[in-house]
Amino acid sequence: MIRIEDSVITAQTLEGRLAGEKQVEICSRAKLTPSAQDFLRDQGVEVVRREAGGEAPRSPVVRQADPVAVPGSRKAFAGIFCPNIVIFDGQGKINYPEMERYVNWLIESGIQGLYPNGSTGEFVRLSWEERQDVVRLISEVNQGRVPVLAGASEANLRDVLKMAEFYASIGGVDAISLVPPYYYKISDESLFEYFAEIAEESPLDILLYNIPQFTQEISLELMERLLPYERIFGTKDSSRDQPRLINTMYRLRAVRPDYVVLVGCEEILLPSVMMGASGGTIATSGIIPEVIVELYEKARSGDIERARALQYRILDLINLMLLGINFPEGFKTGVAARGFDVGPARASTSAAEQEYLLKLESQINCVLADMGYDVRGPRACPVTNLPPIVGR
Amino acid sequence: MIRIEDSVITAQTLEGRLAGEKQVEICSRAKLTPSAQDFLRDQGVEVVRREAGGEAPRSPVVRQADPVAVPGSRKAFAGIFCPNIVIFDGQGKINYPEMERYVNWLIESGIQGLYPNGSTGEFVRLSWEERQDVVRLISEVNQGRVPVLAGASEANLRDVLKMAEFYASIGGVDAISLVPPYYYKISDESLFEYFAEIAEESPLDILLYNIPQFTQEISLELMERLLPYERIFGTKDSSRDQPRLINTMYRLRAVRPDYVVLVGCEEILLPSVMMGASGGTIATSGIIPEVIVELYEKARSGDIERARALQYRILDLINLMLLGINFPEGFKTGVAARGFDVGPARASTSAAEQEYLLKLESQINCVLADMGYDVRGPRACPVTNLPPIVGR
Amino acid sequence: MIRIEDSVITAQTLEGRLAGEKQVEICSRAKLTPSAQDFLRDQGVEVVRREAGGEAPRSPVVRQADPVAVPGSRKAFAGIFCPNIVIFDGQGKINYPEMERYVNWLIESGIQGLYPNGSTGEFVRLSWEERQDVVRLISEVNQGRVPVLAGASEANLRDVLKMAEFYASIGGVDAISLVPPYYYKISDESLFEYFAEIAEESPLDILLYNIPQFTQEISLELMERLLPYERIFGTKDSSRDQPRLINTMYRLRAVRPDYVVLVGCEEILLPSVMMGASGGTIATSGIIPEVIVELYEKARSGDIERARALQYRILDLINLMLLGINFPEGFKTGVAARGFDVGPARASTSAAEQEYLLKLESQINCVLADMGYDVRGPRACPVTNLPPIVGR
Amino acid sequence: MIRIEDSVITAQTLEGRLAGEKQVEICSRAKLTPSAQDFLRDQGVEVVRREAGGEAPRSPVVRQADPVAVPGSRKAFAGIFCPNIVIFDGQGKINYPEMERYVNWLIESGIQGLYPNGSTGEFVRLSWEERQDVVRLISEVNQGRVPVLAGASEANLRDVLKMAEFYASIGGVDAISLVPPYYYKISDESLFEYFAEIAEESPLDILLYNIPQFTQEISLELMERLLPYERIFGTKDSSRDQPRLINTMYRLRAVRPDYVVLVGCEEILLPSVMMGASGGTIATSGIIPEVIVELYEKARSGDIERARALQYRILDLINLMLLGINFPEGFKTGVAARGFDVGPARASTSAAEQEYLLKLESQINCVLADMGYDVRGPRACPVTNLPPIVGR
Repeated sequence: MIRIEDSVITAQTLEGRLAGEKQVEICSRAKLTPSAQDFLRDQGVEVVRREAGGEAPRSPVVRQADPVAVPGSRKAFAGIFCPNIVIFDGQGKINYPEMERYVNWLIESGIQGLYPNGSTGEFVRLSWEERQDVVRLISEVNQGRVPVLAGASEANLRDVLKMAEFYASIGGVDAISLVPPYYYKISDESLFEYFAEIAEESPLDILLYNIPQFTQEISLELMERLLPYERIFGTKDSSRDQPRLINTMYRLRAVRPDYVVLVGCEEILLPSVMMGASGGTIATSGIIPEVIVELYEKARSGDIERARALQYRILDLINLMLLGINFPEGFKTGVAARGFDVGPARASTSAAEQEYLLKLESQINCVLADMGYDVRGPRACPVTNLPPIVGR
Repeated sequence: MIRIEDSVITAQTLEGRLAGEKQVEICSRAKLTPSAQDFLRDQGVEVVRREAGGEAPRSPVVRQADPVAVPGSRKAFAGIFCPNIVIFDGQGKINYPEMERYVNWLIESGIQGLYPNGSTGEFVRLSWEERQDVVRLISEVNQGRVPVLAGASEANLRDVLKMAEFYASIGGVDAISLVPPYYYKISDESLFEYFAEIAEESPLDILLYNIPQFTQEISLELMERLLPYERIFGTKDSSRDQPRLINTMYRLRAVRPDYVVLVGCEEILLPSVMMGASGGTIATSGIIPEVIVELYEKARSGDIERARALQYRILDLINLMLLGINFPEGFKTGVAARGFDVGPARASTSAAEQEYLLKLESQINCVLADMGYDVRGPRACPVTNLPPIVGR
Repeated sequence: MIRIEDSVITAQTLEGRLAGEKQVEICSRAKLTPSAQDFLRDQGVEVVRREAGGEAPRSPVVRQADPVAVPGSRKAFAGIFCPNIVIFDGQGKINYPEMERYVNWLIESGIQGLYPNGSTGEFVRLSWEERQDVVRLISEVNQGRVPVLAGASEANLRDVLKMAEFYASIGGVDAISLVPPYYYKISDESLFEYFAEIAEESPLDILLYNIPQFTQEISLELMERLLPYERIFGTKDSSRDQPRLINTMYRLRAVRPDYVVLVGCEEILLPSVMMGASGGTIATSGIIPEVIVELYEKARSGDIERARALQYRILDLINLMLLGINFPEGFKTGVAARGFDVGPARASTSAAEQEYLLKLESQINCVLADMGYDVRGPRACPVTNLPPIVGR
Repeated sequence: MIRIEDSVITAQTLEGRLAGEKQVEICSRAKLTPSAQDFLRDQGVEVVRREAGGEAPRSPVVRQADPVAVPGSRKAFAGIFCPNIVIFDGQGKINYPEMERYVNWLIESGIQGLYPNGSTGEFVRLSWEERQDVVRLISEVNQGRVPVLAGASEANLRDVLKMAEFYASIGGVDAISLVPPYYYKISDESLFEYFAEIAEESPLDILLYNIPQFTQEISLELMERLLPYERIFGTKDSSRDQPRLINTMYRLRAVRPDYVVLVGCEEILLPSVMMGASGGTIATSGIIPEVIVELYEKARSGDIERARALQYRILDLINLMLLGINFPEGFKTGVAARGFDVGPARASTSAAEQEYLLKLESQINCVLADMGYDVRGPRACPVTNLPPIVGR
């Protein structure tokens, strides 16, 4: 019999350590992830749990005390996380070199965190392998420079855990974000079970991702019920619902003062940070990272006047990228305007929509020029002659 | 033939001035309101419009230039407008003495405007005459101390104009607020016509009231199209949609810098004022006027820290009054907690709900005590021992 | 002291019978309507209730047994009820002569019931007095030939009862239909109280009117809870929700086998009647009464083939009238196509929409001609050369 | 150079036929599926299209004429298709033997088609491989006895085509059903492109699956625009919207008289078939196949009385399985009541919900007994003593 001391045991943990053994002893409270269970069953290996005397019955309270669930050194989740787009080549495959150039530019521009496989990252339009490839790429390019939040929002619990295990196995991912399972709506009771089970088994920390535009809402009451699970250390809220966001900070931080709240709506970045948000996952930061980071810093430091000026100056750009075109094509066009070859859309796009995107790029260029950016492309619209907000 | 020079002519204008005459001469561009038209038809009076040469054909541009549409001296619409509740007596009739006591208290507490017949004022649960009585009472008690915004949201255009004419006739009302016609949904094209017609004929200035929870939304595009009508000088937005509110200020003030924007959502009063809102119609100001006015003043003056502390301290009270009970019964219970005899509910209320309201009053008392108010009633819940935000 | 034996006493009952008396004796369980209560208070009259021994305490069970609530001879509510439009003259006032001609034509064409002040009748766009005038006109023209269901959907309980009392006072109205109070949403608990109070006090029988497109839904559970109130004898469902309609008949008729269910959706008239609906309130019956009545009769008698052919043949007409234009303007245009001078729209209508209505009338004419009607107006679209469904 | 004559060429087509060749000649209008393109690129193989003279430029009209798009011998899609549940074993894996026993029982009970990977089949809760395994199992057990419609609703176009190619490669699948891509909403323009691209490249015929409860609606206008694509031969509509279903049959069959319309809502099976629906995908047919098939047959043959009796008798069962519990757990409980060991839920389920399912099974048993089934389990509720609708 072989003995494994890990508190969370994945298939990766087991591979190459069994050495033909058909019995393995593990800690009484160790978690076997689904991949590990499958692996053991396939190999015909028997599991023995070593009883360590006086073990308390499993309960929510115990769950909290579980050393697995108390990560020792969580990276600070504050500031602007960029939910990066995915760049494709002429054949519709991921364009790794251009992605690398883009991600380096984001980090060098001051972005405080990376966020692959978010909604902006079109995760559902990628294959399982592509989702893994994107996160691997981000991790490798990042080299630990900024924290990485990776979307692990698969359609079912097993796939979520498999993906989380993969992220944990490659290193470089600091936490995962999670929407409710999509397609079906389920009861809040079931949704609680869903997140609780993942919180118990995930090898990585978790941010609850609320985006009722695309899947069912995570009610504030449900978030409160999930507070005992330390794995869940915060939320990323893209609901565009400021009253909700303020109540989120008020109610959840009354219990866990360090609960992370990231706002996922660019139009309300200043009000949200001013009210205490930890930062934001802001797609616009993929286009004008300097401005969004400055907006955040000024909001943090109380320079409301400058922050407000910036918040209003970016509205045209946001509206151009957000409205009138399928999400996130407008944002990809914005990245193109900054000089990256974003390649073709992955989503089905009609000829009329492709033409619209060309016009949009021209308008975005104009707005960027008006902000003070050195835009080389054509400029289709009249500028406002407002003072630049970025240096030329 | 008698001649009348007024540019807007109502039935009131005509009464007592015709002296049996069967012909009346009016200015070529004078407006005859529906009540005036009815009056003239009923009396069999013929109308002659004096042609003044070179009159431009009616057009949107002309409409803007219309002296009728350019009010000379509009009162400042800024700060906290209190959408007052209506107080009933034991027989379910309006309790005028207690209403008077309440309104005086609001003004003395620093409220910067009054707002009868808003949603908080249960206008649809009052009869036509009661709606008139409430506004008359407010006007008489106010005596011009603060501006009065009166809801004139009837279900159809004719009734709106009739009510606006009534308000104009009694004096003391500075502007009306208007929701889209309720019950039916109509096209944006028709909604434009609706507001345009009222803007042309109303004797009072108009705030567009957006409250998609109760009736159809007024899109921002529609508000932009209505900008040429100077009668419409602003909006009151209760949509709880902060991104929309910020875009409203951005887009409408680009054309009309003095466009009034009042926020109608208590949870986001600070962010809204910080972003430039003119003020708010805040139901909670009917319960804790001193705190809401201070919050507004601090937000205006840039004392973000104090304003934020106040904004967070009032959330419990707001949630107690807003959730779990039909609107606006929670707010009426809040007013009762401040020592006014609000009387029975006008809306149908079950025994269970009545019992809930008693419990709610006790909870509200507790929260008020925690804020520093001298509450005399029972105190059911534990206080937080936070520092008081109002003097005892 | 004067004595009044009526079981429901309205202001009308009292007027002219008190003869200066300041005391009135009534039955111990007689209902005093709000108008009567107001009247008595205003006149300073004291009410004495004669105790008749052993009176049971008021309870839901007693309510059922209340003779007031058990109407002796309710007219059959079956077949096609026409929710009539309102016809205006050139000055925007109700055109009584043309209305009379129209209503007579409807009855002569075989319509089995009349339904003024429905949604098709634009009740919220009429003044209080106009709503009364419409019902008075219908009653007088009808002279009892067919049952009359009159909408009494005011925005609040007191106005509903006042209107119901008015209907009762003029005679000729067999029942009222009632939506939930509009504008505000209220809890189901409150909505139960609302309908229960009206059921207890209304002098007329009641159909619950479900139309979630315009105001809050009346859940099937709520309808079940209201079954003990015999005043409420059925429902008119315009939700377009066939599964709901089938469950309505299944669940409510299990308790009250004669519960009336009228469908208010023209596209599913055949399936609904085939499944057991009592009939329908079908706006299209105001345009092609012969066809709709025949469709109903054939569905009732089991001639599915003919009924199906009719149901499909009317779809083009329905879609033309229902889609692309504010409700109910399309239906008014349909009535115009049948030769009635429907006059101008009451609702605000843009020039573009007015032009559209002209085009629509031409298209409707074409469809009517294709059905076999002798259309005299222009015919803009190619006909299908299907066999006529009405005689020329 | 090797030559391949197939009109649709997948990776499977190519494997084993290139024999090291680095050039392949194909027909000028042959389709290379994404998997084939990937395969060729990975192998470094060049493709030569043989020009056959006078080839028309690719256009929608040509698309219609494409022999690929005109399947020669499509199986009849009529009657009751059973959207089968998936049965798991104690370890949460698919229980193949019990699935086999269940599918055989369905076919022997008269089911007219099978429908794996529908919403009832929890396709999003299965892994990619499990979805393939389920369809392979169904095909193998079926052995061509009834037509098989397989859900291929992946979240993106490439995965849809990969899955369709897989289905085509194993044989035994007659058509696929397709919802719009889920999670994101896209414009109707893009949705048209999405379905058009799949219609051009799919090796299997397609039913458009409308289920707005779970993902965006496919408008009727969009379905009309897709009529030229012969690959798309019908729709399966689970919207519960009878007016829409009737208009679907009316408008689409005017162009393509054999357009297949399957209703996916059990409560309206009779009305839908009576109005002309080709049949239904009815989850309840997985529990009482004999009754649902009889209902369909009687509706088809015009025995409305018997069909109506059956339709009403099954409502209790439907409501028990559909309401109060996450979909499709109620239906799985129904299958359990018929004697199959359905195993644990795949979806997260709380202890309270598990307890509810036990109670539900007892209630279902009671309803089944009342219908005349020989139920062996406990019977918790009183029966109605209605005549049985199935033989004992």
